[in-house]
Formats: sequence, C-alpha cells, structure tokens
Amino acid sequence: MFFRTVCSCLLIITRRKSVHLLPSSSLFFNKSKFYSSWGSTKDHRNFKVKLSLFMDPKSEEILAPFRASVKEQGDLVRSLKADGATEIEIKKAVAELKVRKKILEDKELELAPAAATFDRAKMEDLLKRRFFFDQSFAIYGGISGQYDFGPMGCALKANMLNAWRKFFILEEQMLEVDCSILTPEPVLKASGHVDRFADLMVKDVVNGECFRLDHLIKAALENIARDKKTSEEVRTECQDIVIKLDGMTKDDMSAVLKKFKIRSPLTGNELTEPIEFNLMFGTQIGPSGLIKGFLRPETAQGIFVNFKRLLEFNNGKLPFAAAQIGNAFRNEISPRSGLIRVREFTMAEIEHFCDPSDKRHNKFKNVRDTKMLLYSACNQMDGKSAELKTIGEAVDTGLVANETLGYFMARIQTYMIRIGVDPSRLRFRQHMSNEMAHYACDCWDAECLTSYGWIECVGCADRAAFDLSQHSKATNVRLMAEKKLPQPKTISVTEIQPNKPVIGKTFKQKAKAIVDVLSSYSIDEIMSFKNKLEADKEATILIGEEPIKITQEMASIKMYDKVVHVDEFFPSVIEPSFGIGRIMYALFEHNFRFREGDEQRSFFALPPLVAPIKCSILPLSSNAEFEPFVIKLSNALTNLNVSHKVDDASGSIGRRYARTDEIAIPFGITIDFDTLKEPYSATLRERDSMSQLRIKLEELPGVVADLADGRLAWSDAQKKYPKFEQQESTKHGEE
Amino acid sequence: MFFRTVCSCLLIITRRKSVHLLPSSSLFFNKSKFYSSWGSTKDHRNFKVKLSLFMDPKSEEILAPFRASVKEQGDLVRSLKADGATEIEIKKAVAELKVRKKILEDKELELAPAAATFDRAKMEDLLKRRFFFDQSFAIYGGISGQYDFGPMGCALKANMLNAWRKFFILEEQMLEVDCSILTPEPVLKASGHVDRFADLMVKDVVNGECFRLDHLIKAALENIARDKKTSEEVRTECQDIVIKLDGMTKDDMSAVLKKFKIRSPLTGNELTEPIEFNLMFGTQIGPSGLIKGFLRPETAQGIFVNFKRLLEFNNGKLPFAAAQIGNAFRNEISPRSGLIRVREFTMAEIEHFCDPSDKRHNKFKNVRDTKMLLYSACNQMDGKSAELKTIGEAVDTGLVANETLGYFMARIQTYMIRIGVDPSRLRFRQHMSNEMAHYACDCWDAECLTSYGWIECVGCADRAAFDLSQHSKATNVRLMAEKKLPQPKTISVTEIQPNKPVIGKTFKQKAKAIVDVLSSYSIDEIMSFKNKLEADKEATILIGEEPIKITQEMASIKMYDKVVHVDEFFPSVIEPSFGIGRIMYALFEHNFRFREGDEQRSFFALPPLVAPIKCSILPLSSNAEFEPFVIKLSNALTNLNVSHKVDDASGSIGRRYARTDEIAIPFGITIDFDTLKEPYSATLRERDSMSQLRIKLEELPGVVADLADGRLAWSDAQKKYPKFEQQESTKHGEE
Repeated sequence: MFFRTVCSCLLIITRRKSVHLLPSSSLFFNKSKFYSSWGSTKDHRNFKVKLSLFMDPKSEEILAPFRASVKEQGDLVRSLKADGATEIEIKKAVAELKVRKKILEDKELELAPAAATFDRAKMEDLLKRRFFFDQSFAIYGGISGQYDFGPMGCALKANMLNAWRKFFILEEQMLEVDCSILTPEPVLKASGHVDRFADLMVKDVVNGECFRLDHLIKAALENIARDKKTSEEVRTECQDIVIKLDGMTKDDMSAVLKKFKIRSPLTGNELTEPIEFNLMFGTQIGPSGLIKGFLRPETAQGIFVNFKRLLEFNNGKLPFAAAQIGNAFRNEISPRSGLIRVREFTMAEIEHFCDPSDKRHNKFKNVRDTKMLLYSACNQMDGKSAELKTIGEAVDTGLVANETLGYFMARIQTYMIRIGVDPSRLRFRQHMSNEMAHYACDCWDAECLTSYGWIECVGCADRAAFDLSQHSKATNVRLMAEKKLPQPKTISVTEIQPNKPVIGKTFKQKAKAIVDVLSSYSIDEIMSFKNKLEADKEATILIGEEPIKITQEMASIKMYDKVVHVDEFFPSVIEPSFGIGRIMYALFEHNFRFREGDEQRSFFALPPLVAPIKCSILPLSSNAEFEPFVIKLSNALTNLNVSHKVDDASGSIGRRYARTDEIAIPFGITIDFDTLKEPYSATLRERDSMSQLRIKLEELPGVVADLADGRLAWSDAQKKYPKFEQQESTKHGEE
Repeated sequence: MFFRTVCSCLLIITRRKSVHLLPSSSLFFNKSKFYSSWGSTKDHRNFKVKLSLFMDPKSEEILAPFRASVKEQGDLVRSLKADGATEIEIKKAVAELKVRKKILEDKELELAPAAATFDRAKMEDLLKRRFFFDQSFAIYGGISGQYDFGPMGCALKANMLNAWRKFFILEEQMLEVDCSILTPEPVLKASGHVDRFADLMVKDVVNGECFRLDHLIKAALENIARDKKTSEEVRTECQDIVIKLDGMTKDDMSAVLKKFKIRSPLTGNELTEPIEFNLMFGTQIGPSGLIKGFLRPETAQGIFVNFKRLLEFNNGKLPFAAAQIGNAFRNEISPRSGLIRVREFTMAEIEHFCDPSDKRHNKFKNVRDTKMLLYSACNQMDGKSAELKTIGEAVDTGLVANETLGYFMARIQTYMIRIGVDPSRLRFRQHMSNEMAHYACDCWDAECLTSYGWIECVGCADRAAFDLSQHSKATNVRLMAEKKLPQPKTISVTEIQPNKPVIGKTFKQKAKAIVDVLSSYSIDEIMSFKNKLEADKEATILIGEEPIKITQEMASIKMYDKVVHVDEFFPSVIEPSFGIGRIMYALFEHNFRFREGDEQRSFFALPPLVAPIKCSILPLSSNAEFEPFVIKLSNALTNLNVSHKVDDASGSIGRRYARTDEIAIPFGITIDFDTLKEPYSATLRERDSMSQLRIKLEELPGVVADLADGRLAWSDAQKKYPKFEQQESTKHGEE
C-alpha cells in the first residue's frame, strides 16, 4: 500500500492529498537550478549526511526565524488538540503547519552547499535518447502518465526487482504471491477504495477539460496575487487560502471558486461544481456487464484476501511475511513529473503478519546499529531538522513503534543504498498523526531528495489489523490466526439458538439470512434481543432493511461454559511498500554525472548490481583478426550469465567508451593489437574511475563476472592485475 | 501474439475459433482416464517419441479408415480450392476436415499404450492444497478465469521467466522492453483488435446470463442427439451441424437457434439474437471519459509502436529482436479449463525484425540437427501423423519457410524440454492455410499433450510486415528500415506541389489537412488528379467526407529524377509467442508422479532449474543440538542464492520428505545425530530417485548450489560422494 497515505488521508479528510510531492508550480523551489553537493564523478555511496542535517552557523542564523515559525504553529496544534478543539480547527492549523514546514525545508535546501548545478533537461535528454524510457504510444500522440521502458530501463528495472527478490524474499524466506490485477468491486469496497479513493476535480462546461481542483485554485490565486493591480488585502487573502488549501473541504473550495470567479484557464469558460473523481480504472468482468471490476490501485489487497491460504501454507504459524511484485493503476486527473506520478506503475509490497501483542523481530539485533536519518513527527512540529540515529536507539526510546517496523526500516535503507540511492539524499520521515490512517499506529516514509523535492519512494507502516478485519466483515470469513494459550481457560458463551425447522417453515428462502444474522450478533445485541424476547414474546430483527419478527418459538438463548485452548486474533500487519518507478527515478538523478571539464560527456554511475548491462566488448578497430576474440569472450560471458554488449561500430575508442558510459555499463573490455599476441590479454576499464587493467583473456570473463556480481571490488582487482598505462584522456583527445 | 491464430481467424471468418483446445464437453475424449505411457517415477525427459508417432500394426489397422476419411476430405478441400470454389464452400469443407482430423487424433490417443492412468482430480487437489495456484478472490465468491499464484506457483513462474530471459534475451542479446498495459483505442483499431477480436454470444432475455454461441449450440444439439425419442434423421442433422459449427456465420447459427428452438439451458427462457462480443476489457483513460482505452490483449503491439526507437537503439541495423514479458487480458465469455483459458495471463513474446528478402539466420547451423516432431499442414490434410525430422531437413525441403523461423522453433523446443516439458508430448503443428492470418506466410504452434488434448503453448509465426505497415498507415510515421544499395540508383519522382500561401488563404484551418492529403497520394492518384486538373482546371479532393475544390492556382505537378543510396522497406517479423500459464499447466501434468505402489504419495518431478524451492533442510528431530547446524546451512545457502525451506515440524522424516516432494523440492538435507560428530556431515537426498549421499557440511552448500543451477548432475554427484545406506523405505515404514 505504497502511497497509502494518500488513501489514508481520505479516510479522514474526504479527499486525497499529495503531501510529499512538491507541486511543480511551487512558488518556493527553483527546479532547474537545484543545489546540492554532488555532480562530480566522485562516488557518494559511502555514508555521509550533508543535506539539511549539519548547517553552518551562518545558515542556522538565517534559518532560525523559519524554525521558530514552525515551532510556534506546532505548539498551537498541540494545544488545540489538548483543548479538544474541533476537527476543522485542528485541520486548518495543521495545514498552516505544513506550509511553514515546507518553507523551512526549501530554505534549508537553498542554503545547502552548492558544488554543482543539476541540469534536469540534460538528464532527460539522455534518458530519452538512449531509450531508458519514453512516452507510451508516442507515434499515436501519446497519453500522459504512461511510459514504456526501453532495453536499458527494462534491464535496470529487472535488476532492481531481482535484487529486491534476493534481499527480501529469499533472505527472509517470504511467501511470494502473484495475484489478479482485475479486482471485483466488493473487495475494493471493503478496503475503502470504492468510496474514498478520489480526488476533487472541476470540468470546463464547454469543452469538458478536467482540472484537479486544488491545483487549479492554487494556480489561479497565485496569478491574482502576482497581479500588480491586486490590493494588498486581496493578495494576503489569496496567500492565506493557498496555505490552507490542503485542509479545505469540497464546500470550502467551491466557495473559493465562486468568490474569485475562477474560470477554465485557457478558454475562460465556466466550470462545473467540484466532482469527486474516483482514481480507479473501472471495467466490466465477463460479458454480462453486471460484474463491475477495477484495475487494482495497489497490490496489497491480493495478499489480504489470500491470508488464510498463506497462513495454512505456513502451517498456521506467525509471524510470516508475504510479498508481491506487480503492476497497479491509478487514473490520475493530470499526471506530470515524469515517472513520479503515473497511471500505471510497478510496486513491490511486503505484508508482515504478526501477533499484535508481540512485535519483536528475531533479526532486529543484526540491524540495531544501522545509522539512519530520521525526521520524526515531533521534529517536524518543532521546526527541527532530521536527526541521525541508530535504529536501535530509535526503537528503544519509542520513537519507532516496535522492532519489526524498525527492522524493515533498516532493511529498506540497506537495499536502497545497495542499488545506488545516495545516502545523503535519503531520509525516513514519520507521518504526523493527522497524515496517518486512523488504523495505523506508526508510519515512516523513505524519501529521496530529487529536483522535485523530497519524494516518497517507500512507505513503511504498522497498519494494525485494519484490512483483515474489513475483509472478514465483508465476507464472514474469519481472517484470523490462533495462538495456544499457556493454559486452557474457561469462557462463558452466550448464543442465540435458532429453531431452524420453524424458521425454515415460516420464512422459506429468507431462513438462511435470518439464521446468519442471529449468529452474527455481538454479546450486547444478544442480550438486548433476549430482553425483548422475554418481555414481548417476540423481537424484531433486520434482514437488510426488512424488519422480521422472531417469536419465542423460533429462537432461544443458550448460555454455557466452554474450555478453550487457543486464542483467536486478527494479526497485525507491518507493511513496507516500494514504488519501483519512483526509486528508479531517484537512481537516475542520484547517479547522473559529467566528466570533469566536459559537460557533453554525461553518464550514469549506477552500481554494477543494477546496471542494465554489465560489460562492453570493444574491438579497437574493424580489423578482422579481432573477431574470433570478440566471439570467444562474448560466449564466455554468456555462459557466466553476464549481460554484455559488443560495440564494433567505427569511431574512436574514446567515443565508444562515452557511448557505453551513457548507458551505465560499468566495465569495458578493449581488444587491441596486443590481444593478438601470446599471452593473449585485453584491457578492462572501470566506468567511474576510467582506470584500466590488463588481464589475461582466460581469466577475464571470470573477473568480470565477479565484479558484476559484487564478489570482487574494483579496488581489489587493481591490487591483483597490472595497470594499463595508456590513459583514456589521450584517447579521448584523439576523437 | 500468442493465440493470434484466434485473432487471425477472425480476419478471415469474422469470429474467433478455438481450434486447438478440445472443448471439455468433447464427445470423444474421456478426460478422467487419460492414457499415456507415463505415470511411473521414471524420468521421461530423455527424448523418446511415443505418442501418435509409432503405432503398432494392429492399431494402424484400426486407424486406417479414420486416416482415409481425413485424406478424402483433405483432397476435397484441395480440389475445391483448385476449382476456385466460393469461400463459404471451402470453409464448410475445411470445418468438416477439422472434425475428421479430431476424430482421428482422439482415436490415436485412445490406442496409445497405457502404462498408467492420469488422475486430474488428484493433481488439482495437490495444486490447491499446497497453494500452487487457486481461484482469485475466493473468499468473495471468486471470478471464473482468474487465478492467484501462491508461493510455489509464483516461484515456479519466476524461475520459468528467468530461464526464458537467460535462454532468449541474454543469449541472443535481444532488446527487452516493458510497455504500458492500458492501450488507447486507435492503436488496437490499427492492429485489427477493435473490429475483429470478438466471439459470438447470446443472452437469456430474462436474467441476462450470457452464453458463448458455439458452445451453447453444441451442447444443445448433443443433448437432442442423445435423446432416445429423437429420430435418426434429426440425430444425423444435429451431428452434422456440430461438425460444421466452426465454419458457420452469425446468420447460420442464428438459423440453427431458431430451427431447434434452443433456449437458455437452466431457465428455459428465450435468448437474444447473436451478438458480437469484443473480448477486450474497455476502460476510460483520464477523467474526461473521452479517451477510450483497452487492457492490451497481447504484448506485441507495444513492441511494434516502439519500432523506430528500437531500430535506432540498434544503430539502424537489421536483423534484431525485441522481447517483452508481461500481462495481457481477454474478457472470455465463459472461461474454463483452469489455467488454459483465463481472463488475465502472462505472455513472453519475441518480435524478430529482418530483411524480407533475407531470412537466413547466422546461428541456424547450431540447431540444424535438432530433431523435432513436425505435424505439417500437408500431413494434417492427408490424415497422416506427425513426423520426426531435423529442423535442417525441414528448412532445406521448404516445409518450414525459412532459417529464422526454423531457428526459433528449435530454440523453443530446447527451452521447453529444459524446463520440464515431456518431449514425447510436444509437437509442432503447422497452421493449415485457412487457419493462418492472411498476412502470415508460415506458422507453427508448439503444442503440449495434456488431459485436455493437444494445447497450443507457443505460437511461432512469420508475420511478414503486417503490423508495422498497419501502424504506419494509421499514424503516417514510416515504421521502416533502410538498407544501403550496392550502387546508387536514379528514380523518377512525381509529386504534387501545393501552393501553400494560396491554399492557406482560401481554406484557413483546413489548409494543413489539404496539404497532408495531397502529399499522401499514390502515383495513380497523382496522375488522376493531374488529368482532372488539366482537363477541368480544377479537381475535387476529399477531406474526411467533405469535397474540396483545388484549382490550378493551388497546386501543380512536379516530376524529376532523384539519386537514392538506400532502399526503404517494411521489415518482416518472425514472432515466437509464449503463453506462460499454459506451459506451466503442461509442466504440472507432465511432471505429476506417484511413488510406486503408493497412490497417496504424489509429487512433482520438476527439473531443479524451475523447481520453486531448490532444497529442504530437515533436522531429524526437534533436538536443540541440531539448531546451530540448521542456521549455518541456511545462511550458507542464502549466500549462494539457493532458495530453501527449513522444515523442523514434528513428524517422521519420511513424512516430511513426502511433504517436500509434493512441492517439487529436488534436494533435501537431513541433519541427524552423525551430523553432530566430526567430521561434520549430513545426508543429501534426490527427490526422483530417492537416493541419498553423505557429504561433509563444508562442501554441502556448494554441491547443492551446483546441482540446483545444473552445473552438476546427480549422477556425477553419486560418483563423487558415498552413498548413504539407510534406505528411505525403512524410514517411510517408520511413519
């Protein structure tokens, strides 16, 4: 349930909010010049925390009033809550708090030391030119929010997912499932998506163009505020509304539309009243047109509805985790921001089921000392920065709710860094109590800093028993687990004993529904039924909306003692949920580099683990003598399952290196005239350092396989094999 | 475009046919007792051709009249074609031919030597009980044609796909893509799916229940024919219609409905007229409700619409192949037959693009000697059996159209056998000319024999340039490749030169459409336009449906010579298309075994390559001393990426072996009291032979990894390590 916050918010505030994603029209954030401390070819994968953590004193001085402003508002929210203020008052105060937080955050980013500027247009050009990904159906004009992954994007994605499978499913022996995408309505009704997974929108009454309401109001009021003719009073009002937009109801926004006479931006036409637009793609299953279905908006529900089978597969024992990798779909009103907000995306979700009274994790000791950048709800309210802490400390002090949640947070961080996320641009942000679903008890998002701001890439929530109990209610199937009691206990049972023959005779087809209702009663309902039956000799029950009279002849109340050996309970669910496309986008930004002094030679410094292709084979020229060596090396690499690319095009070796660098190939074998002489050998070049070694052909495929799989580090290879002296700079000069 | 035959048929006969799948209500085929020569625990993966190839003379005697009957009809079809008979006459004759073929095939299966009976119910029980797969949303009542894969099915599927990726994409350096599932209407309009991807159905006028028309008629007429009161004449007529059903039009079938007064089977209500029901799931993309989209019915179109990007990625060079693994969706009217006919399924498709004038393949020499069971169109017409031939011979004699097609057929066979398909139940059946899409020049289906009959699992077609030219027409984007001419050639160009200023002034917004139309004219259209313009001083053209007058002032005709250096052409496409769910189902049937003499001990003999879990670790008892060894082994296996399962439940070792056999775990490590003594060692057991070796703990994880990855055969391990003497039979007896 990645992005569930989205859905969860709905459960509280009736409409979806995009809390973590800075709108691209942000007033405060200059996207094209995004300052941070990277951009050189140096490897930043070692753990250094730079951004928004350690500010120099001068910057802190500038930030002080912003921090104070956040804290002031945080304190207001706390006191409103303590004083039992109304929900709407609290919401408004929280909306203001968020805006102040965002201003502070932008200021922090602005003040962070700038080593280079990030040029998103250049990166996007490279991604498009080498077909990492591109718009779907472009020859038909394309559809926004849909992307096709080309060979490089597809291989990167497959490698990320393979690494995920090994790191989570294999290492933790999780139960992987692969469930249907088409989901019948009742399932998503129970999960809350049918009723609440919606955004507010308005339509142009003439041409039918649709606008997401909050985006539209924000843009319109910003325009008004910018207008020189606008009075200071109106300007303040506009800014005030923009700040409070997140907390507004449908009616509030409708009033704003009217007050400011907001119209369709391009045509100037009238707009409809706000409409709640459900974000799920609907369809009909089967030919009758009667079975309504949706494309799943998340993969998690497939796991919940299979809970009983999975528990049985695990021999009835808790804890266990199930996982699923698959596509989910959301019909965004106006998708933008490239891979970050799309209509079709791949998720990888884990649902860890455990005893709600015991959320310890037997491998927590292995991760206890992992240092993480934690941005607690409390710090967010106080205007403070994220803090570096060990996860052990965070769990011990209760900042992170329990060991299992903490264990997964640490594992998520290790995975993210291993696949190439820059640790200095990764943080875990705790949901503030008003963002969190009402059923969740703690939730942390792994966020990556990109030129779009901090974006949520992985959600990690303790969701308690919400989904299992919802599906149980909807289906009457008890999605519960059992645990053996230390000793048997005696419980008193009170139940309604229906006289089935009489009920059957009296009510015919309705009999079963009546018996079901009687057996579904809670103890309070049973007692009230009993009292009525005794007082009036009959009691009225509801079957759907139809009242049915039950007489004393039809039912009696039975009370008895029963010895039980097990306790039945709804398991708690801890849910790490990965948005693969967003993580991939963060990887692109975090690994985009230029060669020093050459703005034209851009490349991706992706780790070998996820690099789309592990090795290139480059014959120095088209000399026919090279060919048998190329074929032999290629076959040997294939046998070792090393993906590789032969580039025998013309062009200098430097130019061809640059071409393989662009698609992130970490290792390159060059076959030159020395290769033809005994002892046969070739050059092996590493992408990031551009350093080269000379290695015998018989050893070379094995060395490349070890480097590609991470069994051998380049620095160790450098100790073992002689350096190749001809420098690439020379070759580059030859071009 | 797996199952494309389906779609292709439509292109000819206006409705979809399921040619290869025996309907489960078949008159001729006894499903529950399915005879073949397996069922023992012996490994049948060595290549032996038994079924329907070599019949004993007595069986051949029985089959002779059936073969003659097919040949007679085949000859009739041939002569009808030669005499230029009408399409409908040919169709009817072909329908009859197919029925005779089917009767012959069923007879062959019936006569094949029976070593054991296959019990589908037992296999399905095991698949369900150990959660290989099961119905989706079962707690909500489920939806037919949708399945969820549990941990074992999911791992098997992932292993099949990984093997596929290595075998095809990595070895052939194909370009893998991952395209959108939601597809806008115009794309599927161009591919022919919007208009022709439909089945005929009728509805119960009262309750709206839907029936696939051909299935309904067949069942109804079979009922009538079975009725004792039915006259011999009517019985013959019914049988005749059932035979011809495949070739009938909508009107023919409507007449049958009326003539036999066929009604809704359960309710006896009236039925509607036949309706063409498109099998694609429709939805709306975006909030306006105006962009109509479908869930893709195959993955291939995503590759075709990306052709230009892929060609560019390959530096403009042919041949190259692109591949895609992904889900596709078909809204079947009444899905049945388990995994074989479903609404949501995974496909793996390859589109190999090549020069239409050169379909040689540079690796064909590597597969030339591969022996394959080929069931040619010619043999099908003549009532002959499939024949065992090398693919080299088949290509040389022109039976298989070209090397590239032959290369892929051989590769498909190798892949199928490697993952566990029984070679004796695998054949390649050539499409008869009437089954084949009109644009395809040759098509072979890899079919697996199952208890449902021979089912199409992989299609392999030479599709010529159909899709690329369709999408080019629809978009005006030229999806073509270029090849350098041996020497430049001079061509004469004739084109209409529009006078843009005049057209613009006269027609305003319509000007662009007019210029586009004029530039899209073929040479014939240009000449006719020229003649009119010269004769009448004006010519009328159509913009959409609006006639527009073009005067001599607005356009002139230009003729000139041009030197060209390249030839532009639409590449041909060879398409292997794998239905993963169907292959998986064949794997289940082909690898379902019983222990000799124990009908209760069933298991799956899946090859280690695809087995869901590679190894089990079983401590002999719950003795605490075993635990550190279990943990150490488990960690070592994880480090080697060997999936494994620890089963420390109580129960005899024999019972636990049986449990791991059920989920196809090929290797089992048992930790016993000897393990505790130096030199530490444990028992390794192989599933199919149940033989056991004693191996030192330090070597064990490596040995298991080698066995699991196929680097080491069990027979070689047996030569290297001592046999473990205590026989399982004893242990089994202990239970």
